[in-house]
Amino acid sequence: MIRVGVLGATGYAGAELVRLLCSHKDTEITILASKTYAGQKMSDIFTSLRGICDIVLEEADADVAAAKCDVVFTALPHGVSHEVIKELHAKGLKVIDLSGDFRYNDIKVYEEWYGVEHACPELLAESVYGLCELHREDIKKATLIGNPGCYTTCSILGLAPLVANGVVETKNIIIDAKSGVSGAGRGLALQTHFAECTETMKAYKIATHRHTSEIEQELSLLAGEDIVLSFTPHLVPMKRGILVTEYANLKKPYTKEELLNIYKEFYKDEKFVRVLDTLPEVKNITGSNYVDIGLTVDTRLNRVIVVATIDNLIKGAAGQALQNMNLLFDLPEYEGLDMPGYYI
Amino acid sequence: MIRVGVLGATGYAGAELVRLLCSHKDTEITILASKTYAGQKMSDIFTSLRGICDIVLEEADADVAAAKCDVVFTALPHGVSHEVIKELHAKGLKVIDLSGDFRYNDIKVYEEWYGVEHACPELLAESVYGLCELHREDIKKATLIGNPGCYTTCSILGLAPLVANGVVETKNIIIDAKSGVSGAGRGLALQTHFAECTETMKAYKIATHRHTSEIEQELSLLAGEDIVLSFTPHLVPMKRGILVTEYANLKKPYTKEELLNIYKEFYKDEKFVRVLDTLPEVKNITGSNYVDIGLTVDTRLNRVIVVATIDNLIKGAAGQALQNMNLLFDLPEYEGLDMPGYYI
Amino acid sequence: MIRVGVLGATGYAGAELVRLLCSHKDTEITILASKTYAGQKMSDIFTSLRGICDIVLEEADADVAAAKCDVVFTALPHGVSHEVIKELHAKGLKVIDLSGDFRYNDIKVYEEWYGVEHACPELLAESVYGLCELHREDIKKATLIGNPGCYTTCSILGLAPLVANGVVETKNIIIDAKSGVSGAGRGLALQTHFAECTETMKAYKIATHRHTSEIEQELSLLAGEDIVLSFTPHLVPMKRGILVTEYANLKKPYTKEELLNIYKEFYKDEKFVRVLDTLPEVKNITGSNYVDIGLTVDTRLNRVIVVATIDNLIKGAAGQALQNMNLLFDLPEYEGLDMPGYYI
Amino acid sequence: MIRVGVLGATGYAGAELVRLLCSHKDTEITILASKTYAGQKMSDIFTSLRGICDIVLEEADADVAAAKCDVVFTALPHGVSHEVIKELHAKGLKVIDLSGDFRYNDIKVYEEWYGVEHACPELLAESVYGLCELHREDIKKATLIGNPGCYTTCSILGLAPLVANGVVETKNIIIDAKSGVSGAGRGLALQTHFAECTETMKAYKIATHRHTSEIEQELSLLAGEDIVLSFTPHLVPMKRGILVTEYANLKKPYTKEELLNIYKEFYKDEKFVRVLDTLPEVKNITGSNYVDIGLTVDTRLNRVIVVATIDNLIKGAAGQALQNMNLLFDLPEYEGLDMPGYYI
Repeated sequence: MIRVGVLGATGYAGAELVRLLCSHKDTEITILASKTYAGQKMSDIFTSLRGICDIVLEEADADVAAAKCDVVFTALPHGVSHEVIKELHAKGLKVIDLSGDFRYNDIKVYEEWYGVEHACPELLAESVYGLCELHREDIKKATLIGNPGCYTTCSILGLAPLVANGVVETKNIIIDAKSGVSGAGRGLALQTHFAECTETMKAYKIATHRHTSEIEQELSLLAGEDIVLSFTPHLVPMKRGILVTEYANLKKPYTKEELLNIYKEFYKDEKFVRVLDTLPEVKNITGSNYVDIGLTVDTRLNRVIVVATIDNLIKGAAGQALQNMNLLFDLPEYEGLDMPGYYI
Repeated sequence: MIRVGVLGATGYAGAELVRLLCSHKDTEITILASKTYAGQKMSDIFTSLRGICDIVLEEADADVAAAKCDVVFTALPHGVSHEVIKELHAKGLKVIDLSGDFRYNDIKVYEEWYGVEHACPELLAESVYGLCELHREDIKKATLIGNPGCYTTCSILGLAPLVANGVVETKNIIIDAKSGVSGAGRGLALQTHFAECTETMKAYKIATHRHTSEIEQELSLLAGEDIVLSFTPHLVPMKRGILVTEYANLKKPYTKEELLNIYKEFYKDEKFVRVLDTLPEVKNITGSNYVDIGLTVDTRLNRVIVVATIDNLIKGAAGQALQNMNLLFDLPEYEGLDMPGYYI
Repeated sequence: MIRVGVLGATGYAGAELVRLLCSHKDTEITILASKTYAGQKMSDIFTSLRGICDIVLEEADADVAAAKCDVVFTALPHGVSHEVIKELHAKGLKVIDLSGDFRYNDIKVYEEWYGVEHACPELLAESVYGLCELHREDIKKATLIGNPGCYTTCSILGLAPLVANGVVETKNIIIDAKSGVSGAGRGLALQTHFAECTETMKAYKIATHRHTSEIEQELSLLAGEDIVLSFTPHLVPMKRGILVTEYANLKKPYTKEELLNIYKEFYKDEKFVRVLDTLPEVKNITGSNYVDIGLTVDTRLNRVIVVATIDNLIKGAAGQALQNMNLLFDLPEYEGLDMPGYYI
Repeated sequence: MIRVGVLGATGYAGAELVRLLCSHKDTEITILASKTYAGQKMSDIFTSLRGICDIVLEEADADVAAAKCDVVFTALPHGVSHEVIKELHAKGLKVIDLSGDFRYNDIKVYEEWYGVEHACPELLAESVYGLCELHREDIKKATLIGNPGCYTTCSILGLAPLVANGVVETKNIIIDAKSGVSGAGRGLALQTHFAECTETMKAYKIATHRHTSEIEQELSLLAGEDIVLSFTPHLVPMKRGILVTEYANLKKPYTKEELLNIYKEFYKDEKFVRVLDTLPEVKNITGSNYVDIGLTVDTRLNRVIVVATIDNLIKGAAGQALQNMNLLFDLPEYEGLDMPGYYI
C-alpha cells in the first residue's frame, strides 16, 4: 500500500482527491491536513465521507509527513506551499503539487504572470509538468510534479495534435473557455454567492488569466516555435466542468475526417482522451477523468473549431494528480480512475 | 461472473444501473435492451459510456435472455413488463423489476392505486419487496423482486425505527417529500422542460401519488396496525436527490438523543443507513447508495420531525436493485456500491 | 411626489425595493444609504441600474433623512436599526421597517425568539404589523410599520381563511416551507456558496425559526385562540420564491370546492391574492407581488393540504413594503406593483 | 390605444410579448392566437397572467385581425407565417414578424441558409430589418418588419462601432456566443429536457447556424465590404440571456479608452445600449431591454475582445419587437421597455 498524505484536504481539489483515494485499491491515506479545520474529522466537514473517511484533520508538518507517507499531494494556494514542499522533498518524499508553483520551465514566465518571486527556483528546475498524455516518461522518473491547471489541461489537449503536426497557423489561435463555479474554489466571494452567479454568466480576466502562460508554454514546445494566443475564461452556472472552444486557421484545406484521423493517431494509446465524431458535452465527462474532443471545419474560412471538455476537479485537478501518482509508482495508469461520467 | 441483462437500459434508472454495473467486479453485462434505440450502441445514446460500455442495444427477447443471463433487471414502465417477466421467470431466470408491478402484498391495493388490472397475480404472490434493510432474508431466497420506489425507500427508512418501536402515534403522520427532476424520467414533458422547471418548484399529486400506498403497506407491517398517512411530493430544480421531511406525534416525551439511539440501534448493522446528529443534505448522498437520516424534537408540540435523503437513481432505483442482486447471489451486499457521494 | 429614502439599499431586499421604486410613478428616491458602499453609486454595485438609478450611496443620517424624505424604508438586520428608527420617528417621518423588530404585539415573544432585549419597546407599541391583506385599516393610519417576514406572509395568507372561519382544528397544523437562496441575503456564507447549495437541498432551524412566532401571532389573532404549530424551513436551489405546504385537519368533511369558495370569499377584494383551482407553482409569481394559493382535500384523512407561493423579495419583502407605502400615502394600493410574474 | 394582435402567443417569444404588452400604456391586446391552445385562456396556459390577461386564445384569422388590430406580431416558426402575413399586409395591417423570414436583403442568402424557397419574395423586398439602433428611420416608415434574431442583435451591436469605423480587420472575426435554454423555445426536445441540459453545456451548429448569415449581412453593410466570420453558439444552463465574446484584430494599436470612446460616440443617443468600463454580466440585463457592452484590448496580440449581453427574450425578441412598434406608431421608443434588469 502506498501511504498518501494530502495537505489542503478541505479545499475542493483536496476533497475531491480524498474522495477518489477512497476508491483506489493500492493506497492508504495516512495524513489529511487542513489549516482551517485541524482537529475535526474529514467527515465532519464533508458529511458525504461519513463512515468512509473519518480521519482527523491535522496541521501540516513535514517531519510527520516524512514518517508516515510515501507521497504527498499539496493542494494549497500558489506561493503557500513552497516551504513545506522544500522540506518534504529534502526528506525524500515524492510530491505532487496542485498549485501553479511548479508548472513552469522558465522562472521568468512564472514570476511575470503570478507577480511574485519564486521561493525555490532550484526545485522548479527539478520539477516535471504533470500533463500525463504529453510528459509520461518524465513523470515516471520525477520526484516533484507540477500538476497542470484545469483550463490548461483541457486547452492543451484540445489543440496538441494540430500544433504538433503543423496543421494550423500559430497566429490567430483563440481559446474561448467556460468553467463551472467549483473552479473558483471553496473560499467565499461575492461572485460565487449563489444568487449572484446562478442564471447568469460572464467573462473575466480576459488576456490576463495565468493559465494563458501555461498553455503557451506547452503548445510552443509542441510547435517548436513561440506561440502567443488569446485565452478568455468565462464563469458558467454549473458546479463542475470545463468546455473550451478553440479556433485556429488551417494551413491548407483539410476535411473533418482528415483532422479526426490526426487526433485519433495522436491519442491512439490514451485511454482518457476520447476523440468523438460528434461535439462533446460536459455531462459526458462530469465525474470522470476523461477528456472528450470533437471538431468542425469551417470550409468557408478554412478554419478548424475544436471543442474539448473535462471535469475541472478530476482531469483538471485531483484525477490527473492521481494519474500522476499511478505513473510515479508504476501502477496501472487508470487505477482508481476508470469510472464513467455521471451523465445525469 | 454473473451474467446480467437490463431491459429498458436507456431510461434513467436503466442507464444508471448500467453505469453502476460497469464498476461491479463480479458481473458481466450480456444484454442491454431498448425498444427506442435497438440497433445503436449504448455509448451512442450515453456518450459518457464511450469506451466503457459499447454494447449494442437489442430488442427484449425472453429466449435470448434465458440463454445469456443469470439475472435480468427490468426497468420498464409499470404494466409493460408483465409478459416478458412471466416468460423470464418461467425459464428460471431471477428477475429484479424496477416498476411498481411487484411491490404489493395485496393485489387490491395495487389495482386501486394503479388503476389497472394486474396481469399476473400468481407472480405477485411469489415476489418479494426488495427493501433490503427490512426484507433481507426474504430477498436472499427470492426469484422475483419488486424493487421499491424512490420516494418510498426514503420515506419508509426515515420512519421505520419510530413505527416499529411504537414511539409515535400512527395518526397524523405527514410526509412532505421533495424530488429532483430525474425522478420524472427521460420521457419528454412540459413540466420537465428546462425553462419550465428550473428556478421554480411545485407540489403535485397530493394525496394521490402511488408511492403513498407502498409506504403505508410497509409502515403498517412494522407497526402491526393499519397506517394511513399524508404524502405530498414536490418537484425541485435539481437533477438528483430526494429529501423527505416527516412529522409524527410522540406518544410520550423523548429527547433527541433518545430517539437517535433508537435509530442507531435499529440500523446498527446497516452500512448504507447513516444516522446523523445533524440534519442531512442531499449533496452528501448524491452519487451514492447511502440514506442519511437526522431528526429534531419539537418539545413545544411533543412532535418529532425526521429528515431523510437518498439519491433517487441509486438507493431509490439502480443502486438498491444492485444491492438486491448482491443479496440474491450471496455476494458482499456492498459490492459495487461503496462509493461516497459526490458532495460537489 | 413622495420623497423616499432607503437605508440598507444594497442588501437584496433594499436593492429590490430600489428596483421597484424606479418604476413607481409617484415617488422620488432622495436617499440611498449603505454602510458598506457609501460613496459609490448604486449602479456601481448593481450594474442592472446603470442609467436608471445612478444615485450616490451615503451613510445613514437621521437629520438628512428628515430633511429630504417623507418616508424611510429600513432594510437593515434586526437589532441594528433601532436607534435610527427612533430618531426618524421622533422627527415625524413615516418608517417602514423590513427587519423583525416591529412585528410583534408582545415584546416577550420578540425577546424570546430573537434572544435580544428590545431597544425601544415604546415604539413597538405604536407599530403596526404590515400584512396589508389583514391589517389594511391600521396600516393606513400608522407611522411605523413592521413589514412582515417572507415565510410568514406566505404561511399566514395560505391558512388565514381556514383559521378565521374555524374550518380546521388548531392542533396539528404543520407548515413545511421551501425558500429560494436569496432569502438568506447577500452576506457571504458557506451554505449559500454556489457549489455548496446548487443541486442539493436541506431543512434548517426546524422548530426554532423566528418566523414561527410571527405566524403563530397572526393565526392566533384570527382564530381567537392560541395556536402553536410546526414550521420547517428548507433551502432550495433557486434564486427567488417561497412555496409553503400546509397541513390541517378539518373539523368536519368539506369538498375542495367548498373550501375554495371560503378562500374566494375571504380574498374577494384582494388583487394580490389569487385562489387557484390548480396547484400553484413558484414561476407564476416570481417577479410579481402576487400570492397564489391552491389546495387539496385528502378525504381518506379528512385533512386539507394548502399550497401557497410568493416571491420572497417582492410580496415577501420589498413589494409588500411598497404596498404598505401606497396605503400610508393613500395611493392606489397596486401602484408600481401590478406587473405579472416572469414565468420564464 | 393601438390595437394589437399576437399570433403564436403561447411560444416563449409570444408569451413574453404579451407579458410586456400588459405594462404598455398605449396598447390594447385585441387578439391572441395559438394553434395549440385555441379556446383556452392565455392565463390557463401561463398562470402568471391570471387576473392580468385572461383573453381567450383563438385560431389565427386574417379577416378578424384586419378588423380588430392596427398591428400584428407574428411569433411563428419560419416558413409558417408567410400566408397569413401576406393577407394581413394586403389588408393594410402593419406586421412585425419575429421569424427569420423577413430579415434578409438578398433572397438567395435566406434560401441558402434556411434551405427553403421563400414564399413571398415580393414582400421580402418591402420588409425592413428591425434592428432599431441601426435602421431607425427605415423602421419608422415600414409596413413589414423582420425582427432580428437573438444572437444577431447581440453580436451585431457588439461589433458595429468597430466595423463601421474601420477599426478592425474584417478577416479573423470570431464570435463565440452563449445562450440560455429558453432560446430553444417551448417545443419539447431531449436537449432541453431538464436532466439533460442542467449542469452541462455544449456547442452546436458550429459554422452552420442561420444567425451567422444575418450577422454577416449587417456587418458587411456597416463595413462596406463583404464580411465572412466564425459564429459558434453554445447552450448554457440558465433560462434567459445571451452573452457573446467577440474577437477581432485591430488595424493599429488602440487603448481600451480609445475604443470605449468610439463605442460611446457611436451609441451616444441610444438609451438601450450601455457601454461599460467593466465587463458585462447577464444578470444585469435579464428582464430588461438593455444591451451591455464591455471590452478588453490584448496588447500582446493587438486584438480587441468585446463582450456583449442581452436578454434573448426581450432585446433579442419581444422587447425589440415592441421597440419597433413604438417606432412604427411614433410613440416614445422606450415606452413599456424602461424597466431595469432583475439582477437577482
